[in-house]
Amino acid sequence: MTGARTFASDNWAGIHPSVLDAMVAANGDHVPAYGADPVTARAIALFKEHFGDDADVYLAFNGTGANVVGLESMLRPFEAVICAEGAHINVDECGAPERFLGSKLITVPTPDGKLTPALVEAAAVGVGDEHHVQPRVVSISQSTEVGTCYLIDEIDALASWAHARGMLLHLDGARLANAAASLGVGLGAFGSAAGVDVLSFGGTKNGAMAAEAVVSFFPAEESSLRFIRKQSMQLASKMRFVSAQFIALLTDDVWRSNAAHANSMARRLAEGVSQVPGVTLAYPTEANGVFAVLPPAVTASVQEVYPFYVWDESTGVVRWMASFDTTEDDVDGLVSTVAEMMSLHG
Amino acid sequence: MTGARTFASDNWAGIHPSVLDAMVAANGDHVPAYGADPVTARAIALFKEHFGDDADVYLAFNGTGANVVGLESMLRPFEAVICAEGAHINVDECGAPERFLGSKLITVPTPDGKLTPALVEAAAVGVGDEHHVQPRVVSISQSTEVGTCYLIDEIDALASWAHARGMLLHLDGARLANAAASLGVGLGAFGSAAGVDVLSFGGTKNGAMAAEAVVSFFPAEESSLRFIRKQSMQLASKMRFVSAQFIALLTDDVWRSNAAHANSMARRLAEGVSQVPGVTLAYPTEANGVFAVLPPAVTASVQEVYPFYVWDESTGVVRWMASFDTTEDDVDGLVSTVAEMMSLHG
Amino acid sequence: MTGARTFASDNWAGIHPSVLDAMVAANGDHVPAYGADPVTARAIALFKEHFGDDADVYLAFNGTGANVVGLESMLRPFEAVICAEGAHINVDECGAPERFLGSKLITVPTPDGKLTPALVEAAAVGVGDEHHVQPRVVSISQSTEVGTCYLIDEIDALASWAHARGMLLHLDGARLANAAASLGVGLGAFGSAAGVDVLSFGGTKNGAMAAEAVVSFFPAEESSLRFIRKQSMQLASKMRFVSAQFIALLTDDVWRSNAAHANSMARRLAEGVSQVPGVTLAYPTEANGVFAVLPPAVTASVQEVYPFYVWDESTGVVRWMASFDTTEDDVDGLVSTVAEMMSLHG
Amino acid sequence: MTGARTFASDNWAGIHPSVLDAMVAANGDHVPAYGADPVTARAIALFKEHFGDDADVYLAFNGTGANVVGLESMLRPFEAVICAEGAHINVDECGAPERFLGSKLITVPTPDGKLTPALVEAAAVGVGDEHHVQPRVVSISQSTEVGTCYLIDEIDALASWAHARGMLLHLDGARLANAAASLGVGLGAFGSAAGVDVLSFGGTKNGAMAAEAVVSFFPAEESSLRFIRKQSMQLASKMRFVSAQFIALLTDDVWRSNAAHANSMARRLAEGVSQVPGVTLAYPTEANGVFAVLPPAVTASVQEVYPFYVWDESTGVVRWMASFDTTEDDVDGLVSTVAEMMSLHG
Repeated sequence: MTGARTFASDNWAGIHPSVLDAMVAANGDHVPAYGADPVTARAIALFKEHFGDDADVYLAFNGTGANVVGLESMLRPFEAVICAEGAHINVDECGAPERFLGSKLITVPTPDGKLTPALVEAAAVGVGDEHHVQPRVVSISQSTEVGTCYLIDEIDALASWAHARGMLLHLDGARLANAAASLGVGLGAFGSAAGVDVLSFGGTKNGAMAAEAVVSFFPAEESSLRFIRKQSMQLASKMRFVSAQFIALLTDDVWRSNAAHANSMARRLAEGVSQVPGVTLAYPTEANGVFAVLPPAVTASVQEVYPFYVWDESTGVVRWMASFDTTEDDVDGLVSTVAEMMSLHG
Repeated sequence: MTGARTFASDNWAGIHPSVLDAMVAANGDHVPAYGADPVTARAIALFKEHFGDDADVYLAFNGTGANVVGLESMLRPFEAVICAEGAHINVDECGAPERFLGSKLITVPTPDGKLTPALVEAAAVGVGDEHHVQPRVVSISQSTEVGTCYLIDEIDALASWAHARGMLLHLDGARLANAAASLGVGLGAFGSAAGVDVLSFGGTKNGAMAAEAVVSFFPAEESSLRFIRKQSMQLASKMRFVSAQFIALLTDDVWRSNAAHANSMARRLAEGVSQVPGVTLAYPTEANGVFAVLPPAVTASVQEVYPFYVWDESTGVVRWMASFDTTEDDVDGLVSTVAEMMSLHG
Repeated sequence: MTGARTFASDNWAGIHPSVLDAMVAANGDHVPAYGADPVTARAIALFKEHFGDDADVYLAFNGTGANVVGLESMLRPFEAVICAEGAHINVDECGAPERFLGSKLITVPTPDGKLTPALVEAAAVGVGDEHHVQPRVVSISQSTEVGTCYLIDEIDALASWAHARGMLLHLDGARLANAAASLGVGLGAFGSAAGVDVLSFGGTKNGAMAAEAVVSFFPAEESSLRFIRKQSMQLASKMRFVSAQFIALLTDDVWRSNAAHANSMARRLAEGVSQVPGVTLAYPTEANGVFAVLPPAVTASVQEVYPFYVWDESTGVVRWMASFDTTEDDVDGLVSTVAEMMSLHG
Repeated sequence: MTGARTFASDNWAGIHPSVLDAMVAANGDHVPAYGADPVTARAIALFKEHFGDDADVYLAFNGTGANVVGLESMLRPFEAVICAEGAHINVDECGAPERFLGSKLITVPTPDGKLTPALVEAAAVGVGDEHHVQPRVVSISQSTEVGTCYLIDEIDALASWAHARGMLLHLDGARLANAAASLGVGLGAFGSAAGVDVLSFGGTKNGAMAAEAVVSFFPAEESSLRFIRKQSMQLASKMRFVSAQFIALLTDDVWRSNAAHANSMARRLAEGVSQVPGVTLAYPTEANGVFAVLPPAVTASVQEVYPFYVWDESTGVVRWMASFDTTEDDVDGLVSTVAEMMSLHG
């Protein structure tokens, strides 16, 4: 690997300059630890500007932490989470949800990474039967792990389905900014307005160093999130530096410009590779990820130039992620490399 | 609070300039996520220079996380940890150890925050009896929560006691740098040389933003620390920025100068207040914390000028922590304020 | 050991004839499994006769199971249980509470196995502080592990203390029958009338084979005990045979006569040994356990004739338990053996 | 329901007379609690006669308990269990495995309830990748939840596959007796001879009241099963009465005659209903369960006479279980009722 920009993951990128500046600016004299500081107060005020005054905000270190903490606030161990088979909480968190929630994940195969009321309905079995875990939370990812986005109406339909059954809706928004930019809406569109009860909002993939947030619209005294975050090892002592990262992202719509740029680079890439003979896209490109089917020999040759991950070995699907700092030249370079290798090995 | 330097906690301080510089320097182009990057490789090499080639290193976000991850690598849920009653893992982690290890903490009252083989022996009951948890790990804090330090021989004696019984020794080194500076030894003196099996090494209180490490001398395949860290939500995606913090601290002995300075300010403070009539020290000042007994009215008056915590309401003991950026003027100001309030309210 | 009656534990005894008869009578044709059978319906009706119509009853296999299931219905993992240092949940359940609740037990030394509001008050620290576990449940044992009994007023005082702070009261009644017989009250005196929220009622030590109950006065929908019992591996498939055991005990006051007999034998024993020169009782004999201080050589010699356990090696306290089938001859035999060995070795 | 014999479940049956006799015979004078008694010694000796001298035996209360305890002895929380989608541990234990092991169950759809090396191979992904749980145990049910049996060679093939990868094989033998009777082999054929590392052997469905066993061929010091059983709330105090149940079943091949009878009744039923026009069997009848496809109206009408469960509402599959006390008349009655209702509603 050259150290240059790759398409392996949006967390291979570094820190956006605005974020780094904000962290530097937050340094200086002593302030209270654990979030009782003015920088954190400012960050939380900004969250409320974006997500609404009913948003209860708890900053965390990483995405797995934010998901587990948020889910724990909604669940008891005999209650289950219904999620897509490919959900990050199911396949990429080393079993942290089962380990720390004690709860079962009920997984549902999906064609495009998105749950629907019909899919969830079929999975929500055994209600009231003590031999079965009790479905309590529907968890969706926005944007999804395969680069698609839920429309607001689709989220709303899932929320209505859940609430009608005394269930709750969780949203893993590790790439929420990309979805908001893609749909042309504000971040608050994915909160209580859409019926979401608790969400994770990811700063890291959006240009931060390590900053994630649990945003809860579930009653604070029931959620007990303060205690859950601390017990779950996600409370930073020098919190101001986590908060500063969000201040940077949530000011002057840096979050949106970073996400929109990444989305735009992904679209350029999707358009480019889909014109290469023999290359087909596996999913629509609705956020910052591009999924294409390549012959294995082509995949291997392209990876020698640009590191990226094979998404599914059995189908030959590969994943390319664009980030806030991906350039048009990066994209064009990848497209021409794919084209070259397809002509050689395809 | 004025925003100036206080004596509330060493985590009310900001980031040491060297650390911030290293984080800025680590920014730039894409590198692999989750620690497979050259910055992390450099950090781990530096750890090995300090702790020895047998050190197996896993960086984490915070002290609670590092302690829980380290302990999990040594324990099964029916096995217990013996620790001092005032240990951070017992009183300041919101029950994270019990929650995530499933293990009982067997707590031992101590006069000075330090365990001894005799104290541990008395607590290690029920061995082989299936009705009792099985003592497996002795956990000590270095420096302790009350500002004292174990001598190397004292650690060695605990390690020998533990190993003779098939048990292991864990060291919570959230302030390990302060102990090393105080004793005039290197960090490696607290590793396998002293019989320690797994330790947490704290960067945050030493001048980092959020950087802790689990250093294990326990066989890697048994410890499974890679998986435990990820499942325990302590694996950073943009790891290079955690690693960079440690590179700064572990280069040119920044860790030692930061710690030695904080220790020196604590000694100055201890000497100053102990000359104020009516003020007595509760514990010897062997690291960067000063513990003194004040009348409640004095405590309240001094807190209006300098924020700090009451350590034990029942005894009137207060805690003052010095940090890498505490100045002589800060110390002298606190001493004269204490003296003034003692003459007014004492 | 001779196979004769011993004083080792009330669970060294067999099954009371009424219980065995009831189990035999419950055999026969098919009935629904998991408690949806007429035998279980009858048992639950009997529980309500004894404990009141607001009693929500869940039968379980053993005492550890009943305690853990009951506590889980009252707690979230960051919430803690305050209990006596010698409580069964703390010292005799191999850490099952920490393991399965995820909660910390805050333990309190007691002179006689009994908590008081003052003792509990001193242990209920850190309320509202996210670094500390949050006290949620006070758990008491009735009768206690050292053979003493709480008066109804003492339980009521603890309940009032707890409820005034939004906390709950749990009662481990593995030997509740002995306490009721000792105090001359009904079982219901220890339920909601005394402010108890959830209790374990032990059948096994009272003459059953393996039958314990969780009796909850906590709102059923909040407690979710149906699901907790199943998930906690305490739901019997052929439930009728657990239920039948309780039908036997709760009919014609078999529970009381069994307990009263055991208490009476314990009193006879306490009176006998306390007249042996050099033998002193360690605790008042208020239920079916007798605790005396013996010289080690005497203990060892008496154990060769009658198996029993040393309660505390450091103080020389031994424990003798009477059961429903202990005879006057058994007691007199033990007393004379103690007297003989005291004159030889004392 | 009439109280007569049904086809709802083999745990709707009562206790076999031999088992009840053995429990009565075990009553009498005092014996040590928790399994240190001669009855338990005899039971364990019988287990070794059947399962081999390398069998390490731990009696438990119920099937969920035996499965969870056995699995816990083989796993750490980041390690996963691969099992059939319809496995009891996945669908009928209210999430107890995830809750208490902390581990993920990786589930595999199967045509007939049986795993194969090819099916397991496809599910064992992410080995060595810290983002994924690590496959550690393959768990199979014998006989399966749909009434099929693994041949010895099929088990052996799974064991070889697992062991070649450093993994282990667990067998849920809640109906192991039925499989042994069906295949005409001894119980030991499913132990270490077939490469099984840990199994649950079910007494309850075979005619016991409540008696299950964990039989481990995994090294005892690694398995730590003594402590795991106690901490998992599965250790009976009056153990002799659990042990006595197994003594009855394991003496004079009562286990085999009970199982063979139930299997024979199932075969009679399968043959009978498969001759009813319009009724088809969903799975081969290889043990004591019969699975047939019925029109919903027929199912409802037959259920009014004979209680039984619908296995899969979406496909109309129903389940009939035979037990040790099912009679030919019971079977013939059900067959003729099915025939009658098919002619009316089919």
